[in-house]
Amino acid sequence: MRILLTNDDGIFAPGIQALWRELSEVGEVMVVAPDSERSATSQAITVHHPIRVDQHCFDDPRVCGWRIGGTPTDCVKIAVEALLDQKPDIVVSGINQGPNLGTDVLYSGTVSAAIEGALLGFPAIAVSLTSWKMDDFSVAAKFTSNLVLTAIQKPLPPRTLLNVNVPPLASSELNGVEITRLGAIQYENIFEHRKDPRGRSYYWMGGKQVDSENGAGSDVAAVKQGKISVTPIHFDLTNYKIMPLLEEWNLTT
Amino acid sequence: MRILLTNDDGIFAPGIQALWRELSEVGEVMVVAPDSERSATSQAITVHHPIRVDQHCFDDPRVCGWRIGGTPTDCVKIAVEALLDQKPDIVVSGINQGPNLGTDVLYSGTVSAAIEGALLGFPAIAVSLTSWKMDDFSVAAKFTSNLVLTAIQKPLPPRTLLNVNVPPLASSELNGVEITRLGAIQYENIFEHRKDPRGRSYYWMGGKQVDSENGAGSDVAAVKQGKISVTPIHFDLTNYKIMPLLEEWNLTT
Repeated sequence: MRILLTNDDGIFAPGIQALWRELSEVGEVMVVAPDSERSATSQAITVHHPIRVDQHCFDDPRVCGWRIGGTPTDCVKIAVEALLDQKPDIVVSGINQGPNLGTDVLYSGTVSAAIEGALLGFPAIAVSLTSWKMDDFSVAAKFTSNLVLTAIQKPLPPRTLLNVNVPPLASSELNGVEITRLGAIQYENIFEHRKDPRGRSYYWMGGKQVDSENGAGSDVAAVKQGKISVTPIHFDLTNYKIMPLLEEWNLTT
Repeated sequence: MRILLTNDDGIFAPGIQALWRELSEVGEVMVVAPDSERSATSQAITVHHPIRVDQHCFDDPRVCGWRIGGTPTDCVKIAVEALLDQKPDIVVSGINQGPNLGTDVLYSGTVSAAIEGALLGFPAIAVSLTSWKMDDFSVAAKFTSNLVLTAIQKPLPPRTLLNVNVPPLASSELNGVEITRLGAIQYENIFEHRKDPRGRSYYWMGGKQVDSENGAGSDVAAVKQGKISVTPIHFDLTNYKIMPLLEEWNLTT
């Protein structure tokens, strides 16, 4: 099995290193990941400047890969279209440091890389550890490795990916696995106004998270309950339900 | 009516200028747009460095706004959360120079700004002229202005936006308006390998477009037929249909 592995925290991040070690036990891992952190880049692609590509080897002789001067989506595209001799059997993105839950997946480079994998026709999995601090990725890595095997064997339906969020708990403390829907995450007071030494304004995006629509069955609720959340993701943004309503608008040129 | 207007081609682009002139006839337009081109930035947000905000006035005394050192999604967030005294009644993004059709909307800064508007609870419209060359935005601007009035009056259902693509035709040459679904756009041979004067590799993303799944009813087909395409867009990426299938996988920690 050939696994294309990427992330948005960059190729030096501990999450991707833990995952490639684990995935190396079940398949041939090809790492193609950003050369630096590219979180919150969504599905951005690099079209206005060229993309640097450098080979990259770590201590573990089983894994050499590429570090890319681009976004996570760039990484998946350039891996499949230019760098790899053979197509992967599956695309895996992560392990992200921090959650990718609810509507926040819209901004996520981690999830977007997996969407790109699915767009290109491959099974795909995005995985996040829902802590910005915990540096033990072993539980999430092991779960992902097993999920990769399952997704290949069952298999995963086309044009679908799985978004996995793992709580920062020991294996014995986890409360199981739940198949979830995406919840909603909203923020308030998210901009902080400052002035530079020359008196010019700038803002930091920050802010306080306000939960909503995160009842039973949502990914947010599952993680709060100590469960690993697995959400199937599609990328057809057409809202078919309201097409009849729009027909009644009788729009004309 | 208060209209928040943004885009991804930047505040100096002719498309946004044509649209603000037209929209100024039907409401109070507040322009909050990137200080330079930010196309293909998807729904990226700026969290790793601060965001510059400068007031910006054009020749037309009716319109002063802000130019933002950030992405289209940053613009919508910072407008609503920090810059505007009152909330807008609708968010409009465009007019983009070039199409935003099918799966390409996943990469689009123009469409993502409208998604952000809908996420924040406002009706929202993204509009594109499906030509990279034509500099007459008047037909698209007039259609958008009428659509804004309709979307406010009808009104547009919550958590939905409209993605509009206007062919580069005179009003008399247009073949009507069609309510469409998103098609699919695929590319092949999309990376061009080059070497810099020091012998180091780099790649340009480019390539040839290959249509697929663009039959009757798709936005791609409608534009090809000389129609204005209007696609309702949602942003719930949960693939509810395959949740029962995943339950059968009996995943465990």
